[in-house]
Amino acid sequence: MNTSLSESKMKTKLLNAAAMLLMEEGVNSLTTRKIANAANTSTMAVYTNFGSINNLANELIAHGFILLWEEVRLVQFSEDALVDLLHITTGYLNFANKQPALYKCMFGVTSLGELKTSEKENLKSGLYTLDIVVKTVQRLIDGKVIKAENAFHIANEWWVIVHGYSLFEFGDIFSKDKSVPKVLTPLLLHFLMGLGVDPTHAKEALTNHFRYLDNTI
Amino acid sequence: MNTSLSESKMKTKLLNAAAMLLMEEGVNSLTTRKIANAANTSTMAVYTNFGSINNLANELIAHGFILLWEEVRLVQFSEDALVDLLHITTGYLNFANKQPALYKCMFGVTSLGELKTSEKENLKSGLYTLDIVVKTVQRLIDGKVIKAENAFHIANEWWVIVHGYSLFEFGDIFSKDKSVPKVLTPLLLHFLMGLGVDPTHAKEALTNHFRYLDNTI
Repeated sequence: MNTSLSESKMKTKLLNAAAMLLMEEGVNSLTTRKIANAANTSTMAVYTNFGSINNLANELIAHGFILLWEEVRLVQFSEDALVDLLHITTGYLNFANKQPALYKCMFGVTSLGELKTSEKENLKSGLYTLDIVVKTVQRLIDGKVIKAENAFHIANEWWVIVHGYSLFEFGDIFSKDKSVPKVLTPLLLHFLMGLGVDPTHAKEALTNHFRYLDNTI
Repeated sequence: MNTSLSESKMKTKLLNAAAMLLMEEGVNSLTTRKIANAANTSTMAVYTNFGSINNLANELIAHGFILLWEEVRLVQFSEDALVDLLHITTGYLNFANKQPALYKCMFGVTSLGELKTSEKENLKSGLYTLDIVVKTVQRLIDGKVIKAENAFHIANEWWVIVHGYSLFEFGDIFSKDKSVPKVLTPLLLHFLMGLGVDPTHAKEALTNHFRYLDNTI
């Protein structure tokens, strides 16, 4: 039993254990006992660090947004906001694919069972992770790459696309290898060209995006 | 207790009761006893009509596709395939909004708890409901309204958009009144214009679509 970790490290350890349990055994596995066991500690550690299992559940959602942010912030921004938007899309999908169960809880698709979480509050405080999308869209507007007035609205449209795509992928309705090139990439291109992106620019951005992915894997 | 219904009517009654329970009380409410009570009949009726609760669960999914089809087939087709695609979108969303829990089970977003359903099989046999989308996209291609080679791929892109949108609406992340005009409609327009739809035609189609909705409510 590990009692020597600092408070912050123990919290992260318990949250990672909870995220793993959620993914592997579903929402009903999120009990104090199971989380403590999975983190190789005592149930007391859950109470000391979170006060209650409900508080842990709320912090689990917030932790999800941190994990999402860690994927998205890896993007090395270029001079081309279009390339950057594609990079951000890949980062977002990387997180969703690593933590599908947590992703669904974060964005209101499923609830954390009988645990009481403040979905609305959690989402509100987690949406900073998507500011980067709004800012990137604003760069597209400022650079006259797309014709649009409100970057926030366009970011929401992007979000609908990646959310819908992720959920089909989780549900095994789309398979990743085939459906990124057959569905997601063409859909993003149609969306962007409908916003006024020059088709040649779109294809160049895609080439640069894939080159970047090859170099960062 | 009602024992005078024909077999087919009793099956439908039990399936409607199960759909209602799923929506109001969640997946754990789908027990033989609760479904029988909700349908004002005996547990024996469940066994007589379905053999087992698992069979009922599978037929519930198939029933969902019938309900979806009933919304979508209401569309009075016009000469403009673009208008028709917008009508179909509204029909699809009407079903999703009426049966959000069932919708999620049909499309692999959530499972029916401990009930064993053959999601893949059910989805495969239910996807006839989306043939109408493929056919309508094919009309757009044939009429040179959009530039595309494969109607099925384009129909999948449409599907990602309406699926992603529906799930944000279920999760209260988008509110219907505001987000159809602010997110969904512009996104569909950008997508269609990216496929080559003339912006004037797109706006006309939208006007005709809303006029149709006003006349059919």
